[in-house]
Amino acid sequence: MEKEPLLMLPGPVPMPERVRYAMMRQAINHRSAEFGAVYSDCVRVLKTVFGTVNDLFVISGSGTAGMEAAVANFGRDTEIACLVNGKFGERLYKISQRYGKAYEIASEWGTPLNLGALEERLEQGAQIVTLVHNETSAGIKNPAQEVGRLVRKHDALFVMDGITSIGGDVVEADAWGVDVAIVGSQKCLAAPAGLAAVSVSSRAWERLCKNPPYYLDLAAYRKSAGSKPMETPYTPAVPLFLALREACLIVEEEGIANRIARHQRMARAVRAAAKAWGLSMFPKIDAKHEYSTTVSAISYPEGVKDAEMRDIIKKMGIIIAGGQDHLKGKIFRIGSMGAVGAPEILATLAATQFALKKSGYKVQGDGVQAAGEVFG
Amino acid sequence: MEKEPLLMLPGPVPMPERVRYAMMRQAINHRSAEFGAVYSDCVRVLKTVFGTVNDLFVISGSGTAGMEAAVANFGRDTEIACLVNGKFGERLYKISQRYGKAYEIASEWGTPLNLGALEERLEQGAQIVTLVHNETSAGIKNPAQEVGRLVRKHDALFVMDGITSIGGDVVEADAWGVDVAIVGSQKCLAAPAGLAAVSVSSRAWERLCKNPPYYLDLAAYRKSAGSKPMETPYTPAVPLFLALREACLIVEEEGIANRIARHQRMARAVRAAAKAWGLSMFPKIDAKHEYSTTVSAISYPEGVKDAEMRDIIKKMGIIIAGGQDHLKGKIFRIGSMGAVGAPEILATLAATQFALKKSGYKVQGDGVQAAGEVFG
Repeated sequence: MEKEPLLMLPGPVPMPERVRYAMMRQAINHRSAEFGAVYSDCVRVLKTVFGTVNDLFVISGSGTAGMEAAVANFGRDTEIACLVNGKFGERLYKISQRYGKAYEIASEWGTPLNLGALEERLEQGAQIVTLVHNETSAGIKNPAQEVGRLVRKHDALFVMDGITSIGGDVVEADAWGVDVAIVGSQKCLAAPAGLAAVSVSSRAWERLCKNPPYYLDLAAYRKSAGSKPMETPYTPAVPLFLALREACLIVEEEGIANRIARHQRMARAVRAAAKAWGLSMFPKIDAKHEYSTTVSAISYPEGVKDAEMRDIIKKMGIIIAGGQDHLKGKIFRIGSMGAVGAPEILATLAATQFALKKSGYKVQGDGVQAAGEVFG
Repeated sequence: MEKEPLLMLPGPVPMPERVRYAMMRQAINHRSAEFGAVYSDCVRVLKTVFGTVNDLFVISGSGTAGMEAAVANFGRDTEIACLVNGKFGERLYKISQRYGKAYEIASEWGTPLNLGALEERLEQGAQIVTLVHNETSAGIKNPAQEVGRLVRKHDALFVMDGITSIGGDVVEADAWGVDVAIVGSQKCLAAPAGLAAVSVSSRAWERLCKNPPYYLDLAAYRKSAGSKPMETPYTPAVPLFLALREACLIVEEEGIANRIARHQRMARAVRAAAKAWGLSMFPKIDAKHEYSTTVSAISYPEGVKDAEMRDIIKKMGIIIAGGQDHLKGKIFRIGSMGAVGAPEILATLAATQFALKKSGYKVQGDGVQAAGEVFG
């Protein structure tokens, strides 16, 4: 096999050796004290990165399974207001349509949310609000704290998809009034894909809905988590739990504040490079919205072809992302998530700078040098 | 770490080194030709072990997720007849209650199904029938072919949980008229827990129901599987797919007929030992029902305490299963699934024979010798 490419995507991201090697051990009984301890380690660390003291469960399924668990357990037959300014906001809206009366509060992808429309919808009786904290499709960070304030003011429930922010950016679920928060394993935690963690507040439990999907029934997760040893209701994906535990221990060793600072530095370096090149960040931010800390979405300059540019970068062994859906060809996205740091960011920016030039774009200045200033 | 215990459970089961080591590689992009090839290898081999030419998808979730996908996509708002003679039959009934009008056709655990009652229910208009082919909770193999004949006669759909039979016992989904079949990764395939595969017949597609859970929406799986490269609709648990591919290649190398013969031999050896000891198999079988090929459920003789006996065996480094729910303390179960063979079965029977004697039971004869006769 050739050398593995460097994945600088908004997930999946490179995993530390310790995390990968944790998976190769022999099968263990998932109804054992040993597995209970693995699960319990994950929950302990995840609560700190969520910023919550609430119940927290790990589901054997992707982030989408976690999103659906949130909506299905707390939004069935209720009015759901879905804030949408990107692909994952849309996904939460689509999921919500399967369970309740869902209202899409849409903005253009990568532009500020319409919080005025949210407030109106809350006044009209919406009982639950969904938000994607960090919208990777557009590289924008949404004002979760502000949304939480509005939701709480109207006594609704707040479901926050923190899939690509938790573990890499500041998240204070309890302080922000988040009732249900979700993270995915293969993003800032730098674990393999396939697990989602979901936290549930006591306010949410009081409004638990009947008849969620059996596999995503959070009351069953609560019951099994309360047994000794701690368990999951259905067979868990054991190797992924072993890897997540290792990833969580690494987060604990680094310290969450250091980890967030590292992520912020990487994103600043990417933005500094884009600025030096004379390129625009794709999101239109305002006082309440920010550029994402975990993925930078940059608009292509005229004349540079997406497939061509990313192919040049790929030949150098680095994979960055293009745009999704209608943003295909319009933006490129560089992930800064998980276990990567200055070496990976500098390599990516160097390859990108080369590819921009090779594609015929005259960069205004040296982006690699500008990024170096952030790290140096 | 001490030596790993030998898991002789009805899943999870020991994994070959090749399968475990496949998981330790670096993250790969799941929207890539490389991942598409992994998924495609799994599907090719799984179709042969299912005995089907139908569509087949792999879901990142446990066998229970696969069971729910079957019921949710084809049973919503319909009349569902659920054949139950053990814990997993009950689970399919519980899942069915969340989606349609479910009728339980119950027998005592480990006793023959009531096929007369099934036929009545079909005559009264049941549109879908659920069956657990191999009921591990009770060690009984149900007559799937016979059920398929009845279901087809009444033009209903046949959902068969083959979670613990497919890959280790004879399954001919198409020949038996199975419309939706399900397998779990951590059973006879000897892959890690966390994946379920589901096959879907064209008859089933014609009766696809609206509004399944988003995460388990089989139409979305079909659409993504049809793209090039082949994909899953949501992020797959990549390390588990890598391991499943390796496990499937091992199945192909062994040959499915050889693999089934090996499983049958192991079960015969366990039954020969039980007979020699003077113990009874737990299931009450008849001309249509058989003892399971992949797990043997043996009734405890009077006076032998479950926890005590299994503890003695555990101290020898071998884990066997007790009974579940109301069978706790009444039976013990020895798995014969996956990558194990004569060495593991002989070791398990030797330890069990020792433990039976140590627990005060006077064995009638030498079960280890009797098992040896099966392998020798």
